[in-house]
Amino acid sequence: MRLALFDKGRLGLVEGDHLVDVTDQVAGADTAGPAGVLQRHIEAVADGSTVRFDLTGRVRVPLARAALAAPLPRPGKIIGAPVNYLDHKAEMEYTTSVADLGVFLKANSSVIGPGEDIVLPYTDKRTDQEGELGVVIGRTASHVSVDDALDHVFGYTCVLDITVRSGEDRSTRKSFDTFTPIGPWIVTADEIPDPDSLDLRCDVAGTTRQRTNTADLIFGVRELIAYTSSVMTLHPGDVIATGTPAGVGALGHGDRVVLEIERIGRLEVGVDGSRAAPYAQRPGRRNP
Amino acid sequence: MRLALFDKGRLGLVEGDHLVDVTDQVAGADTAGPAGVLQRHIEAVADGSTVRFDLTGRVRVPLARAALAAPLPRPGKIIGAPVNYLDHKAEMEYTTSVADLGVFLKANSSVIGPGEDIVLPYTDKRTDQEGELGVVIGRTASHVSVDDALDHVFGYTCVLDITVRSGEDRSTRKSFDTFTPIGPWIVTADEIPDPDSLDLRCDVAGTTRQRTNTADLIFGVRELIAYTSSVMTLHPGDVIATGTPAGVGALGHGDRVVLEIERIGRLEVGVDGSRAAPYAQRPGRRNP
Repeated sequence: MRLALFDKGRLGLVEGDHLVDVTDQVAGADTAGPAGVLQRHIEAVADGSTVRFDLTGRVRVPLARAALAAPLPRPGKIIGAPVNYLDHKAEMEYTTSVADLGVFLKANSSVIGPGEDIVLPYTDKRTDQEGELGVVIGRTASHVSVDDALDHVFGYTCVLDITVRSGEDRSTRKSFDTFTPIGPWIVTADEIPDPDSLDLRCDVAGTTRQRTNTADLIFGVRELIAYTSSVMTLHPGDVIATGTPAGVGALGHGDRVVLEIERIGRLEVGVDGSRAAPYAQRPGRRNP
Repeated sequence: MRLALFDKGRLGLVEGDHLVDVTDQVAGADTAGPAGVLQRHIEAVADGSTVRFDLTGRVRVPLARAALAAPLPRPGKIIGAPVNYLDHKAEMEYTTSVADLGVFLKANSSVIGPGEDIVLPYTDKRTDQEGELGVVIGRTASHVSVDDALDHVFGYTCVLDITVRSGEDRSTRKSFDTFTPIGPWIVTADEIPDPDSLDLRCDVAGTTRQRTNTADLIFGVRELIAYTSSVMTLHPGDVIATGTPAGVGALGHGDRVVLEIERIGRLEVGVDGSRAAPYAQRPGRRNP
């Protein structure tokens, strides 16, 4: 199943080139708030409520005419894996990897959806694209084993982990508003038995910058869930960005960024550099 | 006003040595979910709904008999300020401060309330207490100025930013379950016109380890809100831990940790080391 948010908060199931509107089949859809109705659906599935969508007689909207939004506009947590491909470790001249660094967190206020723009904050600091496989947690996970890890996955999506190259903590450099494009939808886990064998490609301004297979992850999806759940309890709807391969690079005003992952889909966003300001002008320096 | 969660999700207003139960005066209290009813109240105030609690004829519970919980059990974001007191910068021999490092994020799954236990993860890595003033956002804040910053505050509370001293990203070292004790309640901003002049004391096992006044913050509360809001939009209910002064130190099984902040209150939690494991046994190392 491919599940998307569209037309200001409706939940759609992708069937061929149409979306079938299943919003009204999710209990509590009307009180979902900023987290969105797909979050409610994921929680319902986690609760063991059998949710089978009835598609007969439902409104169908052509995909081409639907305005897709981020499937999870405000996840409970967004977790990232720093340095989780060896070729990215090499290009950045990092001496450590995810095995030493653990995970980092991104602000859940940084999410945008397909077709929106990444907004560059600084005129004089590089802001890079990082294309990644995203894992959406389905069932609460605490201290789960590598073998059991995939039982806790709801599905997969494309995630761009946009990052400023400067001296701040990762959480700052990766949490500017618009820095976590997610989408175009979530593909449920039953369609992807092995998430550690997916081709991934990321193009910027028409040029392929990143090309990998998730087989090259240092911590695969199972290891990443097991490790992360040994630190923090994972809840339904939490998103894990699994890390980026070599080929990160600066974004410029007007660029189009396209991330495509095998069996999942294609996420495309724009880049807006028109509001960038010099780094030295950032506020708050009482005692500089 | 002092607002507390008690007795499994009830909202109470502290009056002297009693709590007045005002749960039913918050619209949508029954669908608040894991974020809790105080989160709903903060959102209602942000929406401009005038929320004045009517205390006549309400159930009153003696504070001494109420089981207080974390006032915000799962905040939208928990933001921390690394190295925001000069004396802590000196004790840790850090060469940079919040002005260089920006802010970090803690997992919202790490919150506990008064009387609960901090659970130590590792037998052979130090886990430290860090006592801090907590700021609770009341109104959405994006690119706000230092002068306007306090208009976006709902209130203040005590926060312990528990931290493992190891090599991982701050988000990992500070996000283990139980690593963010919050409470005992939230004091609304009208009672604290100047948050940058509060005495703070943190005791562990009966000994005072930390003693400061928030006047010594490198980024004061206004600067911290202005800076953070230049990176990420702050939403009602987000929590900012403003940083810790000198005196951090290792916690041990059975310790009691007491954080007391002038005009706010006293937060006390325990320490459970019985489930700690050797650092080398942490899971997930497919390619060590």
